Amino acid sequence: MESTSNSGFLERTLSHLRLAWRDVTDNRTTLEQLNLSATLSSDDEVILREWIDHCLADKGGEVAARARAATLGKSYLELNPTGQQRFLSILALHYDTNAADVEQHIALWQASSDDNRAEAARQLRKVLEPPRTKLLTLFNELPEGIKFLVDMRAQILTLKNQHPELKPLEADLKRLLISWFDIGLLQLEQINWNSSAELLEKLIAYEAVHAIKSWDDLKNRLDSDRRCFAFFHPNMPNEPLIFVEVALVKGLSDNVQTLLDEAAPVGDINHADTAIFYSISNAQRGLAGISFGNFLIKRVVTKLQHDFPHVKQFATLSPIPGLMRWIHQQSPTELEQLPGGKILLSKGLLSQAPLSQTQPPHTQLQPLTLTLAQRDDSYLRAELSKLAAYYLAKAERAGGTTADSVTHFHLSNGAQIAQLNWMADTSNNGLSQSAGFMVNYLYDLPHIEERSQAYSSEGIRHLSASIKTLLNHKP
Amino acid sequence: MESTSNSGFLERTLSHLRLAWRDVTDNRTTLEQLNLSATLSSDDEVILREWIDHCLADKGGEVAARARAATLGKSYLELNPTGQQRFLSILALHYDTNAADVEQHIALWQASSDDNRAEAARQLRKVLEPPRTKLLTLFNELPEGIKFLVDMRAQILTLKNQHPELKPLEADLKRLLISWFDIGLLQLEQINWNSSAELLEKLIAYEAVHAIKSWDDLKNRLDSDRRCFAFFHPNMPNEPLIFVEVALVKGLSDNVQTLLDEAAPVGDINHADTAIFYSISNAQRGLAGISFGNFLIKRVVTKLQHDFPHVKQFATLSPIPGLMRWIHQQSPTELEQLPGGKILLSKGLLSQAPLSQTQPPHTQLQPLTLTLAQRDDSYLRAELSKLAAYYLAKAERAGGTTADSVTHFHLSNGAQIAQLNWMADTSNNGLSQSAGFMVNYLYDLPHIEERSQAYSSEGIRHLSASIKTLLNHKP
Amino acid sequence: MESTSNSGFLERTLSHLRLAWRDVTDNRTTLEQLNLSATLSSDDEVILREWIDHCLADKGGEVAARARAATLGKSYLELNPTGQQRFLSILALHYDTNAADVEQHIALWQASSDDNRAEAARQLRKVLEPPRTKLLTLFNELPEGIKFLVDMRAQILTLKNQHPELKPLEADLKRLLISWFDIGLLQLEQINWNSSAELLEKLIAYEAVHAIKSWDDLKNRLDSDRRCFAFFHPNMPNEPLIFVEVALVKGLSDNVQTLLDEAAPVGDINHADTAIFYSISNAQRGLAGISFGNFLIKRVVTKLQHDFPHVKQFATLSPIPGLMRWIHQQSPTELEQLPGGKILLSKGLLSQAPLSQTQPPHTQLQPLTLTLAQRDDSYLRAELSKLAAYYLAKAERAGGTTADSVTHFHLSNGAQIAQLNWMADTSNNGLSQSAGFMVNYLYDLPHIEERSQAYSSEGIRHLSASIKTLLNHKP
Amino acid sequence: MESTSNSGFLERTLSHLRLAWRDVTDNRTTLEQLNLSATLSSDDEVILREWIDHCLADKGGEVAARARAATLGKSYLELNPTGQQRFLSILALHYDTNAADVEQHIALWQASSDDNRAEAARQLRKVLEPPRTKLLTLFNELPEGIKFLVDMRAQILTLKNQHPELKPLEADLKRLLISWFDIGLLQLEQINWNSSAELLEKLIAYEAVHAIKSWDDLKNRLDSDRRCFAFFHPNMPNEPLIFVEVALVKGLSDNVQTLLDEAAPVGDINHADTAIFYSISNAQRGLAGISFGNFLIKRVVTKLQHDFPHVKQFATLSPIPGLMRWIHQQSPTELEQLPGGKILLSKGLLSQAPLSQTQPPHTQLQPLTLTLAQRDDSYLRAELSKLAAYYLAKAERAGGTTADSVTHFHLSNGAQIAQLNWMADTSNNGLSQSAGFMVNYLYDLPHIEERSQAYSSEGIRHLSASIKTLLNHKP
Repeated sequence: MESTSNSGFLERTLSHLRLAWRDVTDNRTTLEQLNLSATLSSDDEVILREWIDHCLADKGGEVAARARAATLGKSYLELNPTGQQRFLSILALHYDTNAADVEQHIALWQASSDDNRAEAARQLRKVLEPPRTKLLTLFNELPEGIKFLVDMRAQILTLKNQHPELKPLEADLKRLLISWFDIGLLQLEQINWNSSAELLEKLIAYEAVHAIKSWDDLKNRLDSDRRCFAFFHPNMPNEPLIFVEVALVKGLSDNVQTLLDEAAPVGDINHADTAIFYSISNAQRGLAGISFGNFLIKRVVTKLQHDFPHVKQFATLSPIPGLMRWIHQQSPTELEQLPGGKILLSKGLLSQAPLSQTQPPHTQLQPLTLTLAQRDDSYLRAELSKLAAYYLAKAERAGGTTADSVTHFHLSNGAQIAQLNWMADTSNNGLSQSAGFMVNYLYDLPHIEERSQAYSSEGIRHLSASIKTLLNHKP
Repeated sequence: MESTSNSGFLERTLSHLRLAWRDVTDNRTTLEQLNLSATLSSDDEVILREWIDHCLADKGGEVAARARAATLGKSYLELNPTGQQRFLSILALHYDTNAADVEQHIALWQASSDDNRAEAARQLRKVLEPPRTKLLTLFNELPEGIKFLVDMRAQILTLKNQHPELKPLEADLKRLLISWFDIGLLQLEQINWNSSAELLEKLIAYEAVHAIKSWDDLKNRLDSDRRCFAFFHPNMPNEPLIFVEVALVKGLSDNVQTLLDEAAPVGDINHADTAIFYSISNAQRGLAGISFGNFLIKRVVTKLQHDFPHVKQFATLSPIPGLMRWIHQQSPTELEQLPGGKILLSKGLLSQAPLSQTQPPHTQLQPLTLTLAQRDDSYLRAELSKLAAYYLAKAERAGGTTADSVTHFHLSNGAQIAQLNWMADTSNNGLSQSAGFMVNYLYDLPHIEERSQAYSSEGIRHLSASIKTLLNHKP
Repeated sequence: MESTSNSGFLERTLSHLRLAWRDVTDNRTTLEQLNLSATLSSDDEVILREWIDHCLADKGGEVAARARAATLGKSYLELNPTGQQRFLSILALHYDTNAADVEQHIALWQASSDDNRAEAARQLRKVLEPPRTKLLTLFNELPEGIKFLVDMRAQILTLKNQHPELKPLEADLKRLLISWFDIGLLQLEQINWNSSAELLEKLIAYEAVHAIKSWDDLKNRLDSDRRCFAFFHPNMPNEPLIFVEVALVKGLSDNVQTLLDEAAPVGDINHADTAIFYSISNAQRGLAGISFGNFLIKRVVTKLQHDFPHVKQFATLSPIPGLMRWIHQQSPTELEQLPGGKILLSKGLLSQAPLSQTQPPHTQLQPLTLTLAQRDDSYLRAELSKLAAYYLAKAERAGGTTADSVTHFHLSNGAQIAQLNWMADTSNNGLSQSAGFMVNYLYDLPHIEERSQAYSSEGIRHLSASIKTLLNHKP
Repeated sequence: MESTSNSGFLERTLSHLRLAWRDVTDNRTTLEQLNLSATLSSDDEVILREWIDHCLADKGGEVAARARAATLGKSYLELNPTGQQRFLSILALHYDTNAADVEQHIALWQASSDDNRAEAARQLRKVLEPPRTKLLTLFNELPEGIKFLVDMRAQILTLKNQHPELKPLEADLKRLLISWFDIGLLQLEQINWNSSAELLEKLIAYEAVHAIKSWDDLKNRLDSDRRCFAFFHPNMPNEPLIFVEVALVKGLSDNVQTLLDEAAPVGDINHADTAIFYSISNAQRGLAGISFGNFLIKRVVTKLQHDFPHVKQFATLSPIPGLMRWIHQQSPTELEQLPGGKILLSKGLLSQAPLSQTQPPHTQLQPLTLTLAQRDDSYLRAELSKLAAYYLAKAERAGGTTADSVTHFHLSNGAQIAQLNWMADTSNNGLSQSAGFMVNYLYDLPHIEERSQAYSSEGIRHLSASIKTLLNHKP
């Protein structure tokens, strides 16, 4: 359910940053300029390293150092992709921890008495910190400096497979971002049709679960029977970090098409008893692996409980994005042994082509093409439901967690696997990844805590009666 | 010029936090309660340590961990001073870095190849981090959690001389606060008579240079010919971190009484050519040693330049808080050799009693009591001015920096020592610490950068012609 | 309970307006200047009338006309009191309705057919409108122009007894203000300690029932167990029109000293069941006779009901400002016939000096001085209570309404006379006007509408059982 | 240049009002309900009139009266168009001025002495006021009550030709709205991409000069080199009353296609020297005839001067919406006598069909269809320009004002007719109404005042040298 947008927004953001920083640096006329060729030639590498050394040398105080960092950041933004990759590699390779310093402080630590051991540890920790983290920190004061670092990490994440030397730099950046994006600093804000167009167009760009097709589609999702909430960072106003779309309805929603139907009448929230979380999107690729989703759900539930005392049930309507890939990964023999597996084989619903190892599996999957007749076939529905229930309730990854990342996310947060819905998402993505199924994960408030612990420590997945029934069938 | 208020505000803040957290924890009814005796008995110490272990154990996810931290924080606030000190000592002594882990990771780092050295360094850095810093981080999400940690550090700073075991804890906390109070996260905001009473009463409490005597005194300082700016942290709204009071005037102000005179007519800012920074106060004792002053001055100068293009001169009107103490520390023989020194001796202006080593010097100083006739004595004025100019321009501390911390602060920021003003502050503090003198430090914008560097790297103090003239006299 | 502050604020406001308009008029350099002598000499009267004619002539469009009005308004503000009175008298005498025009349009109306009668009526209405109202309207666009007109009316109200020619001008102004201060344009806003100091200092100045003695007194009235609400006009931000102070308590408050006691502990609003309206002040003397109080009470009750569902009882704690005056106006013979009247005579509590006809009665009243023993005298208390109950429940003015204006206000709004409280306000004002009594008027929501109508149309005063009991005694 | 949108928004607004008022009236449960048939049957007419009488009778105070008005307003909104027209006609016919009362007060006025003449005039004015205006005023307090009245007037404007009995009602409503929409109550606000989507979609709906085709088109008009300003009323937030779109450019813009080209690069406002007002739209049809346009232009010019000191030239780029209609109204003989007229005849550019008297002329006009070759024909361009210049500079309406309403608007405001631009608007509207021409009206600030007066009082149209040159040709 949590997905990350690979937005083409990055380029526009960069050009925006370029503008913002041009102003900053133009005003600091007493500083020499840093002019680099777009590809960062070897001569320019020398100039660049001198400039970085200068930034780190701490002459003239922190204010001057940050001014120099602004110039550096602007220069980075004006490089072309090759130049930027070289810039990053220089940071990674030349501004790493100094091993000799570390050795020396290890010796000091080892020689320290009880009294000064804490100080020796502090010093050792300090020399273990690569100098580049100080540089990264300097960008922070600049207007939109945090966004700059978030986007820089997004770039490194793209580059790091081909440029493995960037991995430690990525790890450093992640650590800094974890500290700056501590949940305590984030603001939960409601987004509605009264929000700024500047913000709303970002929802359109960032929505990663059910694409927003137009401003009208968006307006429907922000209507009076819907709620949308996002986390924001104080230094990135108008930039949602993660957002969730909620429908206030009567009873569990079992179909996302209905929720997204712009022509459907607006519900009366005074009669709603259920809040359906039907889309959660991470908006910043550069914050990958820094999790806010669990906080978001709990904060939103708390807020909705307060605002709508008559809403008693909190649940998601979520895809099963790993289902089809997992099915393809089973051999025919294995499938035969699984509940509902035979039908896939017997009806020839699955292509038998083995998956290529070099391409991501989902790009190789054909949408599960079911004729309308098949969709109405109650036998088919019954059998495929068993297989999907098995996948949710039993299938495991190497580490022992659930096979599906969305399932893992919600069970970790204390949810129950509550209901499996047939043909609940018949979009291309819905069919090709989730076989058209969607799941309601139920957040039963009094039990969240204990279920979260039971799953985390013992791997127990809490299942509703209806899911259990699906499992109580021999293959 | 930068001073820190030792506000009696802390107690009220704590009671406020207690209230805020009561709500938080009351809502989290699924969590067991933590009931500790006010003095934290030895039995309770065991319970407390179990609770802390629980917080750190990471069962049930980060959300649950933060809920437990809220309960812990609330319990802390309900302890009496003895109990709180014991609580802190437990954190300091029992949640320190594990030496065996460190040894193990040192070995791993030393054995690491180039490829995995960065990762080994990261791991080593991680085990060097004491477990308590994780706990401190958990407080962050709570309402007013950051203020809680700031006030906790203020408390430790008070306790650490008598409880040296708290020093490493204080250092950890400082490091965390440095990261969370990175200048990039702070907002510069103007404060005026239109600001909230809640905020303004804090200015009254926190002003540390020239005490604010009443709401009328405050209103005068926020009148149309004045400006007041402060840095704020997004998680501590209504809590200034540092603030500066500025008067927009014609020519250099040479007397603070005039600036603070409530009966004086309001100036016409359209004719102002000079901005006088006449008071800078650090408002949070718990942020001692985390410097924002230089950023504040530069941001305010930039803002004023933009808003008042006709203001061309930026200067302070600052005390010389170390002058009298320094004079007392000179022996009569030394004084004789200093410009203007003889007069102090000959006129019997100084008590000869040697300073006690156990009490802070300023508590032993008698105000420099000058009769009104003496204040008008031009010979006395001339001689004392030479001595004060010598102190500003020549006197040194052990490390080679200026003797006076205010002088050091402004020279570090690139200011010039511009003008010495006789009887510019005749308050008790003004006479007993600064001999009634005040100094204008001039921020001459095109030269700030170079002067800051010249002082930082070579100790060069930039002096105006008038100060140089005062120095060009034999003793 | 509704009182009007005779604030010394007017002068400060005027100087503020003078400043605001200087800027406006200085920028309109193409307009000639209007320079009048401070006392408005007869020569200047001619110039002034030319200028006003110019404003009304409508050359160059409405924008130019309003610019000229700004100059005029500024000139008015720079006149001394004599000059201002002359200015107003010129408006009153020379810019009145033109009788000949009226005669002519009367004839046209009388001659009109059904088809054009509405238009003829419109035209007649138009010529009945004095030209000065157009001029007054022009001030409206100016910054703080509405406040200017409100203060101008305050001034005329003060002058009109001595300058009866101003009465029609006052009536015109009132009519305009009624239209601009239509309840539909007003905003209800909560005021608390987080409000701006600029606003809060106006509460201090404008509070007319129980004077606010200091910022600490004010803070106590804005504490967490209190609420304060005011109406604002969009063109007079930071200027409350009327405000009410409410205490959230358990049970009916019977004593205002307790409510105003700064040392009393803060109540827990979660246990409050009653909202006590203990002070309502009209803040703008220039809006006298334009009533918002009834709207204010109903809006505040609605808001409190929403915010505090457990608050079930809404009542005032009000003075009886006319009680002592009324008692003094009774002859001894009349008093003898009234319940509780004898005691006043027998105990010699009343001075027998007849009231002077030329001075306002309340200035002649001595505070009802009761010894502490008398305050505890239960017989005295019982008898005086009967008399006060009689005054509230039976005494009438000429027109048949209640003798007391506060009683009239609350009965008109649909309240019940619920409880009489002995020694509930022992301040000087409390004793001299209300004999120390205060009354709770109860707003019993389901019955407000019917009681308001019963009082308005039939004069029925709704009484509680306890008040009825007090009345059920022979004198 | 000022146009009014005939928005399909009205219906949606009504449904919104219906919702808002349902809440209001549902809460006022003590009031009886008013249930009317959708077409307002004759029986219901009786009920309705009783209800209105009730509202006006003033029983139970103004608060109750407004509550009854809310019920009434809600009932009105639930009527169908026929019912609504009947409702309005009842208001017009039965709640008119009472002639007998007027007669009586005429007699009183005529009999009045000097002393009480003002009061008699006031009373007469009062009885001339139809009772329905009191009713209309009551709607004011309701949420969105002002919008309700504005939309009601829009409806009457549509109905009044067929239902002439509504004209006096329309006149009453206009008078009330003039008072409530006094310029002094309006706020000038900037609109940009950061404004709310709710507001921005109204720009799309209301833009009346150059239709906004999409959100992308809108975004282009709000880019960094553009400005958009609107007036708002405090009781109609998110509802612009009138708005203007401005481009900051270098030199006079001579083509609106260029300005609206989404693919064109964003201009650098630091180099702009000219502000081009290229679209002004009145957004509220119900405010027709209540003029804000002149205030808007002057306020925006003042604001832009302040924000962009380097912008020295303020001009419009305006259509000539009456040009083609005027040409068609000339007979061939007349045309022959006009500069450039012959060419239209000789090239057969004009259809000779006489205009129908019963249909609005512009619906009968064929777009001026010029081949691309003709558009480039410099002789044709020269001749048509003469004709257009003649139209702007010489053609008159009956009253002596300029033939074109846009020309009249800008000359009244003090502008100069500065430049005529060929093929500056080749949209359908542009060609069919303005023959593809657009005009720059120049606001030369030091001369605005005098030019406005010269035009208003003497009809003088100020022309640039280039326009004069076009006129200096014989036909």
